[in-house]
Amino acid sequence: MAATNTTKTGQPFDRDVLDSLLRRTGFYMPSFEIYGGEKGLYDYGPPLTALQSNFVDLWRKHFVLREKMLEVDTTIITPEPVFITSGHVAKFADFMSKDPKTGEIFRTDHLIKQVLGARLKADQDARGQTIEVEKPDEPQKKKKIKDVKIEKLDDAVAQEYNETLAKLDNYDGEGFNELIKKFDIKGPTSGVDLDPPKPFNLMFQTYIGPSADKPNGYLRPETAQGQFLNFQKLLEFNKQKMPFASASIGKSFRNEISPRQGLLRVREFLMAEIEHYVDPESGKKHEKFEDVKDVKLTLLNRHTQLAGSEKTEVMTVGDAVSNKVIDNETLGYFIVRIQDFLLKLGIDPSKLRFRQHMANEMAHYAADCWDAELFGSFGWIECVGCADRSAYDLTVHMKKTGAPLVVRENLPEPKKFKEYQVDMNKKKLGPKFRKDAKAVENAVEDLSQDLREKLSLELKDSGKITIDTPNIGNGKTELDKDLITIEQREVTQHIREYTPNVIEPSFGIGRILYHLLEHVFWTRSSESQDEPSARNVLSIPPLIAPIKVLIVPLSNHLDFKPFLRHLTSLLDEMDVANSIDDSSASIGKRYSRNDELGTPFGITVDFQTVKDKTITLRERDSTKQVRASQEDICAAIESLVRGRETWEQVSKRLPEFTSQEVD
Amino acid sequence: MAATNTTKTGQPFDRDVLDSLLRRTGFYMPSFEIYGGEKGLYDYGPPLTALQSNFVDLWRKHFVLREKMLEVDTTIITPEPVFITSGHVAKFADFMSKDPKTGEIFRTDHLIKQVLGARLKADQDARGQTIEVEKPDEPQKKKKIKDVKIEKLDDAVAQEYNETLAKLDNYDGEGFNELIKKFDIKGPTSGVDLDPPKPFNLMFQTYIGPSADKPNGYLRPETAQGQFLNFQKLLEFNKQKMPFASASIGKSFRNEISPRQGLLRVREFLMAEIEHYVDPESGKKHEKFEDVKDVKLTLLNRHTQLAGSEKTEVMTVGDAVSNKVIDNETLGYFIVRIQDFLLKLGIDPSKLRFRQHMANEMAHYAADCWDAELFGSFGWIECVGCADRSAYDLTVHMKKTGAPLVVRENLPEPKKFKEYQVDMNKKKLGPKFRKDAKAVENAVEDLSQDLREKLSLELKDSGKITIDTPNIGNGKTELDKDLITIEQREVTQHIREYTPNVIEPSFGIGRILYHLLEHVFWTRSSESQDEPSARNVLSIPPLIAPIKVLIVPLSNHLDFKPFLRHLTSLLDEMDVANSIDDSSASIGKRYSRNDELGTPFGITVDFQTVKDKTITLRERDSTKQVRASQEDICAAIESLVRGRETWEQVSKRLPEFTSQEVD
Repeated sequence: MAATNTTKTGQPFDRDVLDSLLRRTGFYMPSFEIYGGEKGLYDYGPPLTALQSNFVDLWRKHFVLREKMLEVDTTIITPEPVFITSGHVAKFADFMSKDPKTGEIFRTDHLIKQVLGARLKADQDARGQTIEVEKPDEPQKKKKIKDVKIEKLDDAVAQEYNETLAKLDNYDGEGFNELIKKFDIKGPTSGVDLDPPKPFNLMFQTYIGPSADKPNGYLRPETAQGQFLNFQKLLEFNKQKMPFASASIGKSFRNEISPRQGLLRVREFLMAEIEHYVDPESGKKHEKFEDVKDVKLTLLNRHTQLAGSEKTEVMTVGDAVSNKVIDNETLGYFIVRIQDFLLKLGIDPSKLRFRQHMANEMAHYAADCWDAELFGSFGWIECVGCADRSAYDLTVHMKKTGAPLVVRENLPEPKKFKEYQVDMNKKKLGPKFRKDAKAVENAVEDLSQDLREKLSLELKDSGKITIDTPNIGNGKTELDKDLITIEQREVTQHIREYTPNVIEPSFGIGRILYHLLEHVFWTRSSESQDEPSARNVLSIPPLIAPIKVLIVPLSNHLDFKPFLRHLTSLLDEMDVANSIDDSSASIGKRYSRNDELGTPFGITVDFQTVKDKTITLRERDSTKQVRASQEDICAAIESLVRGRETWEQVSKRLPEFTSQEVD
Repeated sequence: MAATNTTKTGQPFDRDVLDSLLRRTGFYMPSFEIYGGEKGLYDYGPPLTALQSNFVDLWRKHFVLREKMLEVDTTIITPEPVFITSGHVAKFADFMSKDPKTGEIFRTDHLIKQVLGARLKADQDARGQTIEVEKPDEPQKKKKIKDVKIEKLDDAVAQEYNETLAKLDNYDGEGFNELIKKFDIKGPTSGVDLDPPKPFNLMFQTYIGPSADKPNGYLRPETAQGQFLNFQKLLEFNKQKMPFASASIGKSFRNEISPRQGLLRVREFLMAEIEHYVDPESGKKHEKFEDVKDVKLTLLNRHTQLAGSEKTEVMTVGDAVSNKVIDNETLGYFIVRIQDFLLKLGIDPSKLRFRQHMANEMAHYAADCWDAELFGSFGWIECVGCADRSAYDLTVHMKKTGAPLVVRENLPEPKKFKEYQVDMNKKKLGPKFRKDAKAVENAVEDLSQDLREKLSLELKDSGKITIDTPNIGNGKTELDKDLITIEQREVTQHIREYTPNVIEPSFGIGRILYHLLEHVFWTRSSESQDEPSARNVLSIPPLIAPIKVLIVPLSNHLDFKPFLRHLTSLLDEMDVANSIDDSSASIGKRYSRNDELGTPFGITVDFQTVKDKTITLRERDSTKQVRASQEDICAAIESLVRGRETWEQVSKRLPEFTSQEVD
């Protein structure tokens, strides 16, 4: 159940209007546009670059500084073995379908979704039902789908389509192929049979060093792995204290099959990721949970979704954790911190929800996952993931490299217990198994206590045992008592060694910024006659607005110049981003141009200024003005942009100025 | 003439000591170390990441905000045609030599330098001359060079070696090959003949999109091109006003043949680049030059270097520009701003010089170029380039794409003049030249006025002309009067159209940070007995120090806990990065550990604190302490780290505290 999308003043939201504003005012532009462009790549112009850097600054203060996280900057270029271990080489892929006639390549799941969706839409049209249809992703460019006529479907068929769409995430290449045959899906522009779906790995490949004759590295698709690989050093840096978090802000890359949805699905994007390491046996408690337990969250849990509903519930994080809606305190704490951050940015609280992943959406190793979803003209979109990645990554890297990616803790009391231990005769193992010796050894070490007990008896009885070694020969390996001993022994443990679990809040910065722009966009009706009937405003909060103050002289009069220089240098000294617009447009037009850029404050220099050195300060959202000395106004601006005062407060303590804006 | 490298307190600088400190304290680590590492890639740990982000923040304030630059964030991934146009595909390469026996690959110029250098060194040893030898780049790993015996060279040979080394930048592959043969340079470990040098392009290749079957894109080697491609939009954003600058901070990539020198030559690095666009006919004046004209610079000009000297001159930028040592005001202004910035960071002014490029070092299109070089244990290293790139890049991209990367200015008075104009009959041109028609047209448009005059006569006389078309057939194309008309006409120009020149300050952030660490490193002799004899200190200025304050409780006593919580939250509220060290080490040890991390201030919570709520504040460099209330101390810290007060001032107004540091 999607909310209808309206602006903060209740007007219907029109994406095309916002988009044309953002392009016209240089917020963003398709990369390499003069070379014909490159799909899925966008450049940020000055306003969006400044907004992004203010975002990063706020993020660092909100998370890294406040939570004393260990921020690292690891490389984008990553040698192949790392992503073989992490599973990305094998699994980080989407399926693609090629049209053999046109050469077009489609992301298979998107194509199926599009075709079945179009048929269902046609069915509803045929049944005379008018329903709200989601706005297509790129209306101008969307390919015509040939096979759709206004045609009623059998009820059973329509139901099957709907069910298929609901579980599309569950299919693999073979499954997709069957769907394509079963539903007779053809190349959308050619009408011919498509080639069978093939997996396409989404990582960009590259060649590291001068001797690489085939790709031997990738551009990272997430910053996480770089953090995991440094776990040992970070733990040491943290003086072995647990829990702690690392964090990283940087570009990641995904070679999307067919990027669309503008800034929402791009091939190169800035991420901010936190990896919070926690003792799995601690119950994942969080020491600051008590401080946040009464914060309310809008939650859409897994069970509600399974029942086919999108009904959210508002509850405190304290209740959510104690009722096991959210798995643990640490996850709950981070969800609250994410919400705090998004609201500080200016995200509309009514367009924010936390949705729990369904089992089929999560990576196989994930224990629980909640997405912060933001609502906008593309529907509800995942913008921050908050996943419990369990001990998966640290475990696989440790297994592969032998590096001790573990925590060692002195036990308060030594622990005594019995366990089955295995000794192997390595002198004989090597010559016998050669290149497979290490794999055999690993297989033996992985044997559970239960199995060891059973095998120890077998070894005693028959002098030999057979173990599973899936990657060697026929998958079974025989070992005799010359090679292996299995015995139960009493062990005294002084140190506990464990692999931490990881809670990972992961922010897609571009997606959040785009939604922020949708949320703060509205249209002001003009009170003046010689202006277009409506003016667009971006109510970006002062804290993160790209430029904080526009300085506007009434005219090009020479008497104003020294004031402009003085004001800009006063504001520069305070590191308050400001700009001067001394163009010949009317003051009203200049302010209106600036409202579109989201600049919260404006200073006017007029003839009164020359007389008594006072200036006016205008606030963007209310267009109200106050008048005071240059120093008082600049001090007020500093306290407004640092969040120490609100406009409400400033406008009460400084004298109001009530001249009409001169258009 | 290299200065000898000493620390700020005059001790000999020992790179190994600093490097082991930086690795031990987690400033940086080789990337993918647990996978065996990857040459030329380093991860920044928490201290260096924080230092880097403070650098970026300061850079933005110093350049982007103060100079009202238009910062953009363009993509790293770049399709091939862009770098074909810019010249990078053809020319951004180093030569490599492969040893056919060992498979080793060497950067050819480095190999020649190393071998000839070693022979010269051996010669001097044989002559019994002791000279200061530059510290080798990576002493531990440096390969033994087989062919060097302590052997005296003929004077003529020694001179030839020296001359060759001085002009090594002038050679290409063929030239290098001749040098290798002439000087009998062999594979350094194998002693066999090397394969002939081959160019190796330094850009990382990649595949964009699912249908690429060969590399079709690169990772950018500089941020500049992304800025140039957006010139039109940036000019529009700037309301067509000139001059202005764009700026960009982001990762760039160079696939170095054999990276070495630690953080100085890496394959992935953060850059900050400014492209300042200026009217070439303005004399490249700068409106703020007057403000800086008395600033003194240490300059090493081209002529001095040509004369074989490295003697620098100190002069004001005003004199340098009026004497034409520095080409123009804009270049001079930026050199001053670069110097200001580096000194604000904490760079040692005696280890900073500006060196002018020799003609053979500059890109062919560059008009002038000065590098800010920093002195350290690797000698003088280029850390900021400041080049006049002329109109080269905008011109080539405009020519290739047809996009108007130009400025159009209304002329104050219309300009009348005569010029030869060419008209082509496009209806006939197309059918006649087919795919070459556009190239013919371009060749005609490129004809100079002089040539047009000559050709107009020829066309009148013989009814046909022949023009040079290097890329078509035999390089000549005949055109008859049906196809082309050339006439002198009177033209009235109302608008002047020009391609701006570009002044480009370009910062290698990692190189600057590394030198900063060398410059602020020193060793304090210990006054206490139970400490190692010397303690390392990094005197990073408070403004950019990674962590500003360490909070240290005297012991683990429970009474101290509420104070720690209160202090950290006071400092958090001010966004002052702080950390708590409540480990069991002595206060002295904890402070000493922290001096190594460059933390400028320390707070001690002791039993006096519990009594009267006062705390002590310690300054890192002097180890002097003051004592006051928590609020007064925190306020003092805020004003210290914001640069509003110096320690000098604070220590005068707050009561001194003179207890011995407890080791």
